[in-house]
Amino acid sequence: MHLGQPLSPSPLDPPRRLLMGSGPSNPEPRVLQALATAPIAADDPALGGLLNDVSALGRVLFKTTNLDTLAVMGASRSGIEAVLASLIQPGDRVLVGVFGHFGELLCALAARHGAQVERVDAEWGRPVDVDEIVARVRRDPPRLVAIVHADTSTGILQPVAAIGAACRDVGALLMIDAVLSLGGCEVDVDGWAVDAAIGGLQKCLGGPPGLALVTLSKRASELLHERTRPIDSAYLDLARLTQQWRECDSQTGGPELSTSMLAAAREALRIVLAEGLQPRWQRHAAASRALRAGLRAMGLEFFGALDSRVPMITLVQVPDGIDEPGVRAQLLDEHGIEIMAAFGPLRGRVWRIGTMGTNARVPSVTAVLAGLEAVLASRGFALARGAGVDAALAVATAHRR
Amino acid sequence: MHLGQPLSPSPLDPPRRLLMGSGPSNPEPRVLQALATAPIAADDPALGGLLNDVSALGRVLFKTTNLDTLAVMGASRSGIEAVLASLIQPGDRVLVGVFGHFGELLCALAARHGAQVERVDAEWGRPVDVDEIVARVRRDPPRLVAIVHADTSTGILQPVAAIGAACRDVGALLMIDAVLSLGGCEVDVDGWAVDAAIGGLQKCLGGPPGLALVTLSKRASELLHERTRPIDSAYLDLARLTQQWRECDSQTGGPELSTSMLAAAREALRIVLAEGLQPRWQRHAAASRALRAGLRAMGLEFFGALDSRVPMITLVQVPDGIDEPGVRAQLLDEHGIEIMAAFGPLRGRVWRIGTMGTNARVPSVTAVLAGLEAVLASRGFALARGAGVDAALAVATAHRR
Repeated sequence: MHLGQPLSPSPLDPPRRLLMGSGPSNPEPRVLQALATAPIAADDPALGGLLNDVSALGRVLFKTTNLDTLAVMGASRSGIEAVLASLIQPGDRVLVGVFGHFGELLCALAARHGAQVERVDAEWGRPVDVDEIVARVRRDPPRLVAIVHADTSTGILQPVAAIGAACRDVGALLMIDAVLSLGGCEVDVDGWAVDAAIGGLQKCLGGPPGLALVTLSKRASELLHERTRPIDSAYLDLARLTQQWRECDSQTGGPELSTSMLAAAREALRIVLAEGLQPRWQRHAAASRALRAGLRAMGLEFFGALDSRVPMITLVQVPDGIDEPGVRAQLLDEHGIEIMAAFGPLRGRVWRIGTMGTNARVPSVTAVLAGLEAVLASRGFALARGAGVDAALAVATAHRR
Repeated sequence: MHLGQPLSPSPLDPPRRLLMGSGPSNPEPRVLQALATAPIAADDPALGGLLNDVSALGRVLFKTTNLDTLAVMGASRSGIEAVLASLIQPGDRVLVGVFGHFGELLCALAARHGAQVERVDAEWGRPVDVDEIVARVRRDPPRLVAIVHADTSTGILQPVAAIGAACRDVGALLMIDAVLSLGGCEVDVDGWAVDAAIGGLQKCLGGPPGLALVTLSKRASELLHERTRPIDSAYLDLARLTQQWRECDSQTGGPELSTSMLAAAREALRIVLAEGLQPRWQRHAAASRALRAGLRAMGLEFFGALDSRVPMITLVQVPDGIDEPGVRAQLLDEHGIEIMAAFGPLRGRVWRIGTMGTNARVPSVTAVLAGLEAVLASRGFALARGAGVDAALAVATAHRR
């Protein structure tokens, strides 16, 4: 289908889906309801309270005292680009750790904003060697180190604490893309000496896509105002946006703010903190443990270094002779369940199954296992019917005891 | 209030407001409900239909056959900046017509993206002299002419048809900021030879802020792909975004799309087209006619050239000796009605009263007149009680006959 088709005349009624892919996940019902909050105008005294709350909740979530904790009005990648565009000046050396698709995105965006990009690569399926990054940082300090914390393309978690310490020692900045990890596993901005981090609502936070959470250390904020060259985009200019948020009841910031998305973010973060960070991380870990036990019992094999996997997405190898897109289409069509294809070198070889936000729960796990089992069985893949679900439930029950 | 206050613990419950300022206006209830539509994932076949619908509805609204009619995932000004960043290359001469605050914004954004900005200014309260722009365009054709169609800061409507014809003759591009006008008065992209136009949901279209509608002529789209230099921002890169929308069922576009905002846009535009463009423009004209009759009967005077006023916002002079912000605060506090202050040279001297979208109706007009009357009377301004509301109703009734 391409643009230019006739208009469909009826109210929008997208199919019911259990979203078990790489995001968006199904949002919490209360968050969808919060989207319908009436707009708050730029000069309304109530606006400042909303901004303050999103910022305060964001600080707890990122584990930081950063005053400059805010939302960028756009997709997660608007937040990533805002950080890179705002912290990089042309010619700056930026060291990027690359272990998947979103590391490549960091390279592309850094280059677009004038950086001299240097890379430390890891084979897909492993994190970047921390010692190698630390050595590079100490040997020849870059302006900025950029790295993905948890990459949906490979399902690998990158340790960053030692990188942050090295950066702090030599005066380099560290930015992490925490879009996938925030709310699903620990992200310790202050503890790891991270200078800029970006989160998205639509993965482990129970919200819809369309808003990026950003936090900046004092050091990063100060550097915004020491630039000698304007930031490439006014819309993504964090010097301007942090100023607007700091003066959160001024009338200058209002016209750009999507108060619907901010109301949704506030409700999503409230739900996360009411559950508690630690229990929420444990719930994400438990869901993937159950999912993986089920997949193993079905005779499937995983992709990537087992001890470096993230808890919110599982990469599983497509068995020989099985039609990768055919399985996904059938699972969507017959079971209403979405799992995702893989990027780049893994395309066609791997499925990505997410357990994020409200779907990091046993019933979502058993649903995807039962559906996938039925689809694979219908296509002649030999497996013991019911084994996946039983194994998942056994693991879940064992951990509950 | 500044960032860093304690978190407010309860669910968000912003005060009830009748939004009669410069936008956002109160959204249509059906549009707020549509925001709660469940997210549609990037690889879901249903996504293409949503994009196609928003594009098709946008074409009717902009009065264009432009294939590249799409939404940018951000505030109205993300759409404005996307157009300028994508059409301007460093050193390009850009001629900006300036007759208010948002013309200044066009100059600032064009300069930020490397343009050599030339200006044609009008005194605030009048449109730019079309003959002067046309003469400048013909004498020394710029790459791009940029002008606001209807500026909320002055309430003035800018004729653009003759400018479009001149641009077409000499091979210059014309972009208009139609954020305020779209849905409230005629915007004829093809008829006026406009190459790029931007609309916002939150003014006359009955939606919340947070999404920009953009349309690009074939000529403008072709030029995107003839650039020799990458566009300054990936997020606002219309070469990339138009490609994603054209291949609207591909998986590449999905991760950035706020399907909540797109669902709201679809519903807002459906409501607009169900009413019909012409009746909707007439409704906006009738509302401001009634409002203005009421304000006149209260003894208030208007700002700006009367025959160049837009139908969706009315600028009224603050009477001598009346505390401008005090009146607004009291109107908000005692009546729950928002009207707005003015920008720049008009600050403190003028109020701006909007009649946009669902509030371009008699009950909203009588409410703001009754509230303003009570506030002004309580502050010692001499007026005949009830005269404003009566005059508005008389005008509304006369036109209904």
